[in-house]
Amino acid sequence: MSWGVDNLPYGVFSCPGETPRVGVRYGEKVLDLAPALHDEVFAAPSLNPFMARGRAAWHDTRTLIQNKLTGDLAVTERHLIPLEQVRLHLPFEVADYVDFYCSLEHASNLGKIFRPGSEPLLPNWRHLPVGYHGRSGTVVVSGTPVRRPHGQLGAGVFGPCAKLDIEAELGFVVGVPTADGSPAGALEEHVFGVTLVNDWSARDIQAWEYVPLGPFLAKSFATSVSPWITPLEALPRIPGRPQEPAPLPYLRRRADWGLDVSLEVLLNGEVVARPPYSGMYWTPDQMLAHMTVNGASLRTGDLFASGTISGPSRGERGSLIELTWNGTDPIKLASGETRSFLQDGDTVTIRATAGDLTLGEVSGTVA
Amino acid sequence: MSWGVDNLPYGVFSCPGETPRVGVRYGEKVLDLAPALHDEVFAAPSLNPFMARGRAAWHDTRTLIQNKLTGDLAVTERHLIPLEQVRLHLPFEVADYVDFYCSLEHASNLGKIFRPGSEPLLPNWRHLPVGYHGRSGTVVVSGTPVRRPHGQLGAGVFGPCAKLDIEAELGFVVGVPTADGSPAGALEEHVFGVTLVNDWSARDIQAWEYVPLGPFLAKSFATSVSPWITPLEALPRIPGRPQEPAPLPYLRRRADWGLDVSLEVLLNGEVVARPPYSGMYWTPDQMLAHMTVNGASLRTGDLFASGTISGPSRGERGSLIELTWNGTDPIKLASGETRSFLQDGDTVTIRATAGDLTLGEVSGTVA
Repeated sequence: MSWGVDNLPYGVFSCPGETPRVGVRYGEKVLDLAPALHDEVFAAPSLNPFMARGRAAWHDTRTLIQNKLTGDLAVTERHLIPLEQVRLHLPFEVADYVDFYCSLEHASNLGKIFRPGSEPLLPNWRHLPVGYHGRSGTVVVSGTPVRRPHGQLGAGVFGPCAKLDIEAELGFVVGVPTADGSPAGALEEHVFGVTLVNDWSARDIQAWEYVPLGPFLAKSFATSVSPWITPLEALPRIPGRPQEPAPLPYLRRRADWGLDVSLEVLLNGEVVARPPYSGMYWTPDQMLAHMTVNGASLRTGDLFASGTISGPSRGERGSLIELTWNGTDPIKLASGETRSFLQDGDTVTIRATAGDLTLGEVSGTVA
Repeated sequence: MSWGVDNLPYGVFSCPGETPRVGVRYGEKVLDLAPALHDEVFAAPSLNPFMARGRAAWHDTRTLIQNKLTGDLAVTERHLIPLEQVRLHLPFEVADYVDFYCSLEHASNLGKIFRPGSEPLLPNWRHLPVGYHGRSGTVVVSGTPVRRPHGQLGAGVFGPCAKLDIEAELGFVVGVPTADGSPAGALEEHVFGVTLVNDWSARDIQAWEYVPLGPFLAKSFATSVSPWITPLEALPRIPGRPQEPAPLPYLRRRADWGLDVSLEVLLNGEVVARPPYSGMYWTPDQMLAHMTVNGASLRTGDLFASGTISGPSRGERGSLIELTWNGTDPIKLASGETRSFLQDGDTVTIRATAGDLTLGEVSGTVA
């Protein structure tokens, strides 16, 4: 089945009238972990306390759950709750949220659109994974309606965003902090798992506000994440994309941290793009190394995301601004409608698979 | 006295072997609030639970403390602990940290230095308070040593930052959240108090990394705040600086939120600058209105800072990059030494007063 014992992502759920707690998805059910494993860490309303336990505990717990689900199901069955009886919550408390800009194709496309006539890639891009801090207080779980933001669209111009966009990304959730001032260890010692991210973006607000300190209100109104955190351990790994020039020693890859994740972006149920994570230029081990090289520490609950995932072909672009080339070449939908950017009532769903594994989906409707 | 009943800032302290709790500074002592007021909210290791109670509670508590300190001191005295017996901690749990860029003189100076030959102020600057998200996990309390960051200083160049700088700022600490998607109310309903901020900055890292998404590692290694949060209620208010062009309606001032705060920057004990907060172009009510106009919500513990405070004369500049014009015109110290940027072992202290009130200081030594 598609949510089998090789998958087992973690989330936070509640039954009507009960407080949220940690569960694992198995098929179309949720395993209620606190009673199933007799461990109060799962009675918390977020994954943070469990994530802080570290890699050995993550592995042992996963093995324990796999054994329970493949052993005498009569014992475990009473802790399996049908999905339709539960509500899913934001699975972790977000500490700091960093968004990167790791796709060569995405950065090139946006350079061409925002700075026409100049070199699309800025001089630093091939030397470091460019990133910035986002707003952690407005990270919301899949299903949360997204309000169209109002803001400044130019000098003296105020109104609702007319270029509401999405960004299809993969997010990495930190379990184990890094020590103050010491470089982070291997990725798998710190990162608990991955989530799908939709970094909603107001392109007209962004174009006016973003110099010189970067995107602010164009992004801070909402960032949606998928409810199920796939353990890093479960993901198939592949070599990262070759890099030229070779990165500085602190950014050199010591293991294969390319991830063979294939995404689909659906607009009102229709697939409009298939972004391939496997082609990303900067890999998550490099993001982690960069983020901490200056001595900055990470905390349990930190979220760092890849930035928009775009491949070289048009159908592989992870944002509408790229898919429609800033609205100049609208998408034609099967319904006969066209879209440059999002209209009120539109639903965007990003879903992903990694080999046989599903990563589920992150979905949101423009209110 | 300089920390009298008109001041009464809040902080978090601990005595040896005890857990941190909330206190109020009075003279050279700390009033231990939980036992003095019989209120367990002050037994928390951060100001957040108290700050969440809201403006009426802040006012009533302040009045209660003033009455206790001006009444029968025999009763209160046993809850007054000499400062030298306590350790001061980060006074609040930082939710999101936003840094603005509100000084016309600072933005103009940095424009001239970073983009010589072009118009120093970018087109958006007079239309909105430019801001960006910083790293909340590396906000530290005054006295915490600051490690010189390493990082990329150009294409293929890695090493210790050679242009380590400070930024003298005023920070606003949010007590009461704003509702999702509804515009924030008046500043005094949300902001509990102010803190002094030193936004340590690595100028060489910043110059290379900051396009197009803004400062990241140049700022994320440390941001220091003063240990005593001065209640907003205690601060003398003055009209804000005139603005041309008139801001959009959502940014219009409805009350006087200029603050008559005078800062001093000391390098190894010697005053090197006296930045005047009173001349800031964008006032904190405008920062709050801007930050939330897109529907973004604020949480208890959010910190938003003014950006570097610089006045028109050289002696009023709140950063070394401005004081030394990017190192081309070093400061001469009384010791005979000169400084372009910070050297290891240097101590920077930012202190401030508002009329008769002291706001204390934020200090840090480069380790």
